[in-house]
Amino acid sequence: MPRYALKIEYDGRPFCGWQRQSALPSVQAAVEEALRRLEPDVGTIAAAGRTDAGVHATGQVATVDLSRDWTPFRLSEALNYHLKPAPVAILAAARVPEDFHARFSAIERRYMFRLIVRRAPLTFEAGQIWQVRQALDLESMREGARHLLGRHDFTTFRSSICQADSPVRTLDRLEVTAHPRADGTEYRFDVRARSFLHNQVRSFVGTLERVGAGAWRPEDVKAALEARDRAACGPVSPPSGLYLTHVGYPQDPFAD
Amino acid sequence: MPRYALKIEYDGRPFCGWQRQSALPSVQAAVEEALRRLEPDVGTIAAAGRTDAGVHATGQVATVDLSRDWTPFRLSEALNYHLKPAPVAILAAARVPEDFHARFSAIERRYMFRLIVRRAPLTFEAGQIWQVRQALDLESMREGARHLLGRHDFTTFRSSICQADSPVRTLDRLEVTAHPRADGTEYRFDVRARSFLHNQVRSFVGTLERVGAGAWRPEDVKAALEARDRAACGPVSPPSGLYLTHVGYPQDPFAD
Repeated sequence: MPRYALKIEYDGRPFCGWQRQSALPSVQAAVEEALRRLEPDVGTIAAAGRTDAGVHATGQVATVDLSRDWTPFRLSEALNYHLKPAPVAILAAARVPEDFHARFSAIERRYMFRLIVRRAPLTFEAGQIWQVRQALDLESMREGARHLLGRHDFTTFRSSICQADSPVRTLDRLEVTAHPRADGTEYRFDVRARSFLHNQVRSFVGTLERVGAGAWRPEDVKAALEARDRAACGPVSPPSGLYLTHVGYPQDPFAD
Repeated sequence: MPRYALKIEYDGRPFCGWQRQSALPSVQAAVEEALRRLEPDVGTIAAAGRTDAGVHATGQVATVDLSRDWTPFRLSEALNYHLKPAPVAILAAARVPEDFHARFSAIERRYMFRLIVRRAPLTFEAGQIWQVRQALDLESMREGARHLLGRHDFTTFRSSICQADSPVRTLDRLEVTAHPRADGTEYRFDVRARSFLHNQVRSFVGTLERVGAGAWRPEDVKAALEARDRAACGPVSPPSGLYLTHVGYPQDPFAD
């Protein structure tokens, strides 16, 4: 059966997360439902990252086996037609080799976390960005972030229900940038690694926000990391600002 | 009674427009309802621009007379508290002189229209930007736009139900810019005048989109303007991309 990779964008607000859960709306179920309109016997699909409830994606990747030969363009158009009105869009589709797996073939995940310092309640972006009211210090957040780079035991920064065998991961990037806006200042956290632990990015951002607010010193992040103790973590940020933006493979299936 | 000016941001999607209409949700009714939680006998409020259904604002201005002396900060905080969960936010409040009127004192209105050329359906910005699928030519749109600048009889570009006494207006700016994005190209139309006719900006944008798509030549915009005939207008764009961004006064009430 021909295998296809799908690049998927979604607004996570109405969903219980990527993964199918009985009786709750999930992104996986929405995409599988659209696939079944094309091929009634289609199986389950595999995704690169199982995003939590309220977490968004602009570059999720999933693979599916279909019985028919679809041109990638027609496949994505047909799926988008059947996905309406759910806030899920297929940005691209590609035929991939049989040994390609969205999750196990991935060699990099990139997340973006958006945080805004603004006084008035959000209107257009409610649920799409984490709002705080207190001014943040960019340099302190950057200094705190540097302690997290590289290969570490991230026990402090993973959820107590994380199912990964090992708490050791290599963080390749955690870059904080400030973007002035008419209504405040937006901070973006660009976070990259081969793979992540459960709630790792939100644990980083929630902790670094405390550093930016002056409640933690940058070096407290190092102490928290070295404690290897979940209780040493700062507050976990809400899911609203988190976006899975890119999944990297040895060969980009969507190139050309 | 002390008079206050409010700078208001709103997502127009759930509203029938700014203006109160019985039995339909309007932005005016939402703000008046919040005001009544502070002062039960408050009167109606006046706004600088009566935006249509689905049209947004980031800088609407309204005036209201209150019986109590409010510090501007406390007034905006209290209103934002009572406005929840409507997507309406008071960005600023200011005490203004008794002869200040949000609508009649205004000497400039600025609108921004957002249009995106993108293939996949919208997820995060559905209802907040006009989506088209066909590539547009920026230079042609700019050339077409230049014909509209200055003082003209804009009969072609106003709604047939427009209630203004005269179709003559002076267009001070209509600047089109292109903003490349990962998912396509966004075009922004920055439109400024002392005042506008009903549906004038949407008539401009709908017509210029036809020029960008190559269906109209830039000089056809000049012919349409000179026809002074509503039937000569291009299609009116949807409201989703339109934002009232700024209202100008001889003295900015929110400056300090």
